[in-house]
Amino acid sequence: MKDHTDIVSLMADIGARARAAAADLAVASAESKRRALEAAADAVLAARANILAANAEDLAYGRNKGLSAAMMDRLALDEARLAGIVAGLRAVAAQDDPVGEVLAEWDQPSGLHIRRVRTPLGVVGVIYESRPNVTADAGALCLKSGNAVILRGGSESFHSSAAIHACLVAGLRAAGLPEDAIQLVPTRDRAAVQAMLTMTDTIDVIVPRGGKGLVGLVQREARVPVFAHLEGIVHIYIDRAADPEKALRVVLNAKTRRTGVCGAAECLLVHRDIADTIGQGVIRGLIGAGVEVRADAALRGIAGTVAAADGDWGREYLDSIIAVKVVDDIDDAIGHIRRYGSNHTDCIVTEDDAAGARFFARLDSAILMRNASTQFADGGEFGMGAEIGIATGKMHARGPVGAAQLTSFKYLVEGDGTVRS
Amino acid sequence: MKDHTDIVSLMADIGARARAAAADLAVASAESKRRALEAAADAVLAARANILAANAEDLAYGRNKGLSAAMMDRLALDEARLAGIVAGLRAVAAQDDPVGEVLAEWDQPSGLHIRRVRTPLGVVGVIYESRPNVTADAGALCLKSGNAVILRGGSESFHSSAAIHACLVAGLRAAGLPEDAIQLVPTRDRAAVQAMLTMTDTIDVIVPRGGKGLVGLVQREARVPVFAHLEGIVHIYIDRAADPEKALRVVLNAKTRRTGVCGAAECLLVHRDIADTIGQGVIRGLIGAGVEVRADAALRGIAGTVAAADGDWGREYLDSIIAVKVVDDIDDAIGHIRRYGSNHTDCIVTEDDAAGARFFARLDSAILMRNASTQFADGGEFGMGAEIGIATGKMHARGPVGAAQLTSFKYLVEGDGTVRS
Repeated sequence: MKDHTDIVSLMADIGARARAAAADLAVASAESKRRALEAAADAVLAARANILAANAEDLAYGRNKGLSAAMMDRLALDEARLAGIVAGLRAVAAQDDPVGEVLAEWDQPSGLHIRRVRTPLGVVGVIYESRPNVTADAGALCLKSGNAVILRGGSESFHSSAAIHACLVAGLRAAGLPEDAIQLVPTRDRAAVQAMLTMTDTIDVIVPRGGKGLVGLVQREARVPVFAHLEGIVHIYIDRAADPEKALRVVLNAKTRRTGVCGAAECLLVHRDIADTIGQGVIRGLIGAGVEVRADAALRGIAGTVAAADGDWGREYLDSIIAVKVVDDIDDAIGHIRRYGSNHTDCIVTEDDAAGARFFARLDSAILMRNASTQFADGGEFGMGAEIGIATGKMHARGPVGAAQLTSFKYLVEGDGTVRS
Repeated sequence: MKDHTDIVSLMADIGARARAAAADLAVASAESKRRALEAAADAVLAARANILAANAEDLAYGRNKGLSAAMMDRLALDEARLAGIVAGLRAVAAQDDPVGEVLAEWDQPSGLHIRRVRTPLGVVGVIYESRPNVTADAGALCLKSGNAVILRGGSESFHSSAAIHACLVAGLRAAGLPEDAIQLVPTRDRAAVQAMLTMTDTIDVIVPRGGKGLVGLVQREARVPVFAHLEGIVHIYIDRAADPEKALRVVLNAKTRRTGVCGAAECLLVHRDIADTIGQGVIRGLIGAGVEVRADAALRGIAGTVAAADGDWGREYLDSIIAVKVVDDIDDAIGHIRRYGSNHTDCIVTEDDAAGARFFARLDSAILMRNASTQFADGGEFGMGAEIGIATGKMHARGPVGAAQLTSFKYLVEGDGTVRS
């Protein structure tokens, strides 16, 4: 590799190689991409010990740096998590290939036959922190959708990501695909991130996966289009016509299954008419599961709750804490969510179809749920094999971003010497 | 209306009213939107004399300002163009309503039932120059897709746009829809444009319709997502296996039907093997039609051509001029288009299906055509009723932007008290 005296020229070189690889990937067969992903999965399996050793290096570095327990947990790999990475690669390999899919096809009175077909976006940039599995997930999804990808992982996971990346490249090589299809930025220098955000001629879209600091930086500085992944200020509204048992089960799972994921419920809205019955039962269940329940004045009387303050509405705890309030009716709940939500995922528990339909129609969250845990807000649970993140913006992709969302389209128009009058 | 001491607060007020209208439009019935568009069409018909009088005022202003003949033509309305505006409104009224359309529906092994449904984007900003009909087209398409729209027309068409806008508002009123659904910025002050480009909390996407100056300004300054409408550097490649008669007909129409539209052909690539036969015939036809043909060394021998310079490749003339060169084969043509094209519209004339398929697969233009005039690069010709522009970027919309492209989607997920393990 060329000797680079500065980051900008390093990134420019990476970008040019990604563009060149993208041109080849756009016409690569579905079979070759499938073979590359299967071979990558085999390589990860074979290199298990090596990857875990690299991870141990990262974990030692992290301990010295004094990373929090939560961060160390996001960083750590073990046999089970590696098996998950292998399964993810094989799942994406098995999916239908989105490239070339005919999205629409019709004839015009002029005699034109028109098809709208899926195409890759071109070059995707992924900037992420901590989780080494993103190296594999993002690499797989971008390859599947015919895109070249430039991966810029966090410095904490530098060695783990490099070890996984080597397996992905082995897969590309086995399938005869360009190795530059999946590049890992080989420097911890933060200037590399800055460079990626402005490479508008080279990178078609950037996906940031990380905490508020990273996502905020990307939003502010990016000139390249970005799939926003903002906060998951997730609400569950327990309607007057809710089934008590479904309400308890759904809310407990939504809050406690994993408190650190974006789909974890952060705020409970309870219809006034069932506050003393279903509401009380659910809140007691949460307290019994060790959740700190911050309640409004109407619910504060329930033993074990603490008082909610103004700052508890519209807040993402990512912890074993939930805010709870009483609402007058479904429209009051909708109004609260419109004001305090982040348009990520919101849920209604009800047996009343009309209420369910009203909730679905009058809210604009990427994911709206009824009688289901918000922890399902995940690409794998949506059948995407893996996801590159959850987009909360409204442009291009929304909700879980899988391979199909990393595509664009073009029109193929056929005539017979047809001219326009 | 409030008295505003500065443009920023005027635009903030317009934005807030657009957001409020968007919330109502998101749940407006298809019938009410259809009725509003039909009533608007009726209003335009009834107000013909008034609109033409307003246009006369704009034309007088334009003459004083010394606008070019081309600009005056873009500005001018007459009975025929008004009939076109009316027809466009009725065409959009008659279309299927995109909002709520189920794009995909499936069941997951977990028991979840998932639907992906179309939603409006929210608030669209349209910044345009000269053409008064954009007021009607953009207003209609945004309304149809459930979006509120903020229209900022050129100062040359100020009075014409206002007269047409009044008819759109009459249509909204007749259907009981909020009048703020379609707002026209009531000031010629350029600061209003600047404000729109940065209203990221209020405007979801901006569509610029105009010349290089406007589009460039928007690209540079916009923080709001933009549907890029870049140059139409349109190529036609006449393949070795081209039908001579189709080639002549398609090329003549593509160049001369209307030279000022983005779909007008600007460069002809001719396969070496048929340069002396089909190539010569087509070039002679162009010269006979009054087109200035700038030829490379290989074709310069044809009487009536002039010499092409380096700057003629990748150039959009928007005039009765075309650049012509010989290529060795289809891959040479593809290479030239990849280097010099603008990914707008490119065409191959051939009877060879394999060549047609290769051209379609290896180029990434928004529109790829075979044996059809590039003048068909138009939303109306694609069956969209009208178009708000042709997007050349790859994010969210590509090619002609009709009502369906002004939408996003959300997921509706139903369970039965379903929780994630």
